[in-house]
Amino acid sequence: KINGDRLWDSLMDMAKIGPGIAGGNNRQTLTDADGEGRHLFQRWCEAAGLSMSVDKMGTMFATRDGTDPDALPVYVGSHLDTQPTGGKYDGVLGVLAGLEVIRSMNDLGIKTKHPIVVTNWANEEGARFAPAMLASGVFAGMHTIDYAYGRKDMDGKTYGEELQRIGWLGTEDVGARKMHAYFEYHIEQGPILESENKQIGVVTHCQGLWWLEFTLTGKEAHTGSTPMAMRVNAGLAMARIIEAVQAIAMENQPGAVAGVGQAKFSPNSRNVLPGTVVFTVDLRTPDQGKLDRMRAAIEAKAAEISADLGVGCSVEAVGHFDPVTFDPTLVARVRKAAEDLGYSHMNIISGAGHDACWAAKVAPSTMIMCPCVGGLSHNEAEEISKEWAAAGADVLFHAVVETAEI
Amino acid sequence: KINGDRLWDSLMDMAKIGPGIAGGNNRQTLTDADGEGRHLFQRWCEAAGLSMSVDKMGTMFATRDGTDPDALPVYVGSHLDTQPTGGKYDGVLGVLAGLEVIRSMNDLGIKTKHPIVVTNWANEEGARFAPAMLASGVFAGMHTIDYAYGRKDMDGKTYGEELQRIGWLGTEDVGARKMHAYFEYHIEQGPILESENKQIGVVTHCQGLWWLEFTLTGKEAHTGSTPMAMRVNAGLAMARIIEAVQAIAMENQPGAVAGVGQAKFSPNSRNVLPGTVVFTVDLRTPDQGKLDRMRAAIEAKAAEISADLGVGCSVEAVGHFDPVTFDPTLVARVRKAAEDLGYSHMNIISGAGHDACWAAKVAPSTMIMCPCVGGLSHNEAEEISKEWAAAGADVLFHAVVETAEI
Ligand SMILES: NC(=O)NCCC(=O)O
Ligand SMILES: NC(=O)NCCC(=O)O
Repeated sequence: KINGDRLWDSLMDMAKIGPGIAGGNNRQTLTDADGEGRHLFQRWCEAAGLSMSVDKMGTMFATRDGTDPDALPVYVGSHLDTQPTGGKYDGVLGVLAGLEVIRSMNDLGIKTKHPIVVTNWANEEGARFAPAMLASGVFAGMHTIDYAYGRKDMDGKTYGEELQRIGWLGTEDVGARKMHAYFEYHIEQGPILESENKQIGVVTHCQGLWWLEFTLTGKEAHTGSTPMAMRVNAGLAMARIIEAVQAIAMENQPGAVAGVGQAKFSPNSRNVLPGTVVFTVDLRTPDQGKLDRMRAAIEAKAAEISADLGVGCSVEAVGHFDPVTFDPTLVARVRKAAEDLGYSHMNIISGAGHDACWAAKVAPSTMIMCPCVGGLSHNEAEEISKEWAAAGADVLFHAVVETAEI
Repeated sequence: KINGDRLWDSLMDMAKIGPGIAGGNNRQTLTDADGEGRHLFQRWCEAAGLSMSVDKMGTMFATRDGTDPDALPVYVGSHLDTQPTGGKYDGVLGVLAGLEVIRSMNDLGIKTKHPIVVTNWANEEGARFAPAMLASGVFAGMHTIDYAYGRKDMDGKTYGEELQRIGWLGTEDVGARKMHAYFEYHIEQGPILESENKQIGVVTHCQGLWWLEFTLTGKEAHTGSTPMAMRVNAGLAMARIIEAVQAIAMENQPGAVAGVGQAKFSPNSRNVLPGTVVFTVDLRTPDQGKLDRMRAAIEAKAAEISADLGVGCSVEAVGHFDPVTFDPTLVARVRKAAEDLGYSHMNIISGAGHDACWAAKVAPSTMIMCPCVGGLSHNEAEEISKEWAAAGADVLFHAVVETAEI
């Protein structure tokens, strides 16, 4: 078994970097805090005898050599970046559990045929720079590096500039590596494992996603002296589209979600009807047909609502992945490890997107999930127990060692 | 008659300060651009032989002495601050037409018994610091100066700090002055005069206003992995309240408006349901009973919608004035001036709030309105013609000189 106390202490140490305002973290991609978190992880990796390489997207790869120079590595990873008001475990658990697997192997003197690489994928959250899972997406050939470098935050700063600024622009070509297998351990970010009282989620699939950014163009006008009949009200159009998104999600129950997390009025003045309203719809379901039908329904409804109000409506897809089926052999190996270790477990579909979704495009991949209190994530109050964290790390340890072959 | 070319040239010169992005202006209250605009106005006033005094709210008073040392001054004013994406005429026309009245009197060698004071009220727009008409409100005893100094912009900077920073904190006590009369010339900011083909609006009333700032508290949660049934969706509550505001305005037609100009999601991340949503409702009508009934209806509906979704809802009134009736003697004097000068005119109710609404609390006050193209204001494309500008300034000139007595 791995050392649960050591894993927990590392989680708590990482959480000191980029503290939030309510007990969680704000260590957004390519901020100074992200840079600091990377340095801490690097020091830990060096202390564990790993060699570090950084690619041109800023993803960190920490390698423990295998005994067979020709064997492809087994990858274990997740991300250290957080939401603006994020928790201490989302992503971080997977990276530090990967490190704990190595530390435990060192303690036990375990050598494997395949190298093992602990990975910190850059910009998983996509909060500062959309889309999410950006570096793993470039790695898997889903985006070009130029597209990624050009992604802008709200202040207009680009990914490329900011990567250089924080000093984590590496030299390794993105996607040059071949993987024997990819494992990702992550908190569930939903309520199922806790309510079913299971310690381990054996992740079989991940639901697909569309992020649709709507730009509504109304007519900026005085809120006091512009008669109701003369208004071209982009804010009202947004309100109606949010209601329609909710209705479309409800019509597609069970097994679908949709909501709006981001909205911006311009000029955003109390006595000015907005000239422009930009907002993003996040819609997900594990069913490919439903995913595309819901997207079409939302776009059609938005166009209809906007036309009705005389508001201009354009839409850009700023994030997308299709539903993912993880590698059956690795899934079975995770299930067997949980079984052998005596942990309660169940199959689960990931509600959130993960780097494993892109890794699955280029290598046999799977995930392990840990319950989280109240299903809460993307919230500073996100919480897990030390025992839960350790149980999944044990399963990860066993599945990784078996895959890397002693 | 006044010099319409000179008035127009001054309008165009002022518009060079704090240029917008689409031909209008961004000269928001207590920004560097506001400071620069004030300096230009001060230079013009000095050149016209006026003496300047600045009060503790930053309002500028430029005085032309009268012949009777005991006579109270006649005030002519409006504001030089703008919306973030404002027009070149909103407010500016009234201040510079006041200056043009003085310049014309100088040209014609007219002396008056009462002094004449051209006034640039600070923070009329209320875009950066709510509420609108802040300095005239303190002048009229509607707010304390401590309340005003503590008003914050979106970055948390206070009115008091920013007034000091731009160097326009004056020494005169606010509200110390007594007025013989107050005149304000302003663009209509609505469509009526243009569509009725009238050159002059004789303003008899101003509609009352409530600005209601709602704070909705939901539960920050992952947009992908949080089931629909577990969401506490503050953004959805906002959407429903915006729709309710629209419905309540429509039920109260004719003679009422309501809308939402400002909205902010927190943390405003695509894959996070907002924990907090703050937005402002602007509602207006000239009917006192209706004003209060509409406020009550909107607050009740917002509470009901929020409760239904489990969302917390609190509301703060960040701006308010009751409907205003302007001084009948001054109103008649404006109408007669328009008549004598041969300008087409009609009675009109101001849709927007103006410093005249607060001045009316402490002195006989009235307004004159100028048409604007398409009724458009609070928009950089706001437009008027040189002839329209000059016609109202002529009426202002005649009404002011008559009131100040030769
Ligand atoms: N795990 C996670 O929250 N990833 C961010 C991308 C997403 O929104 O699913
Ligand atoms: N005239 C004008 O736009 N004043 C700002 C206050 C208001 O919103 O009415």
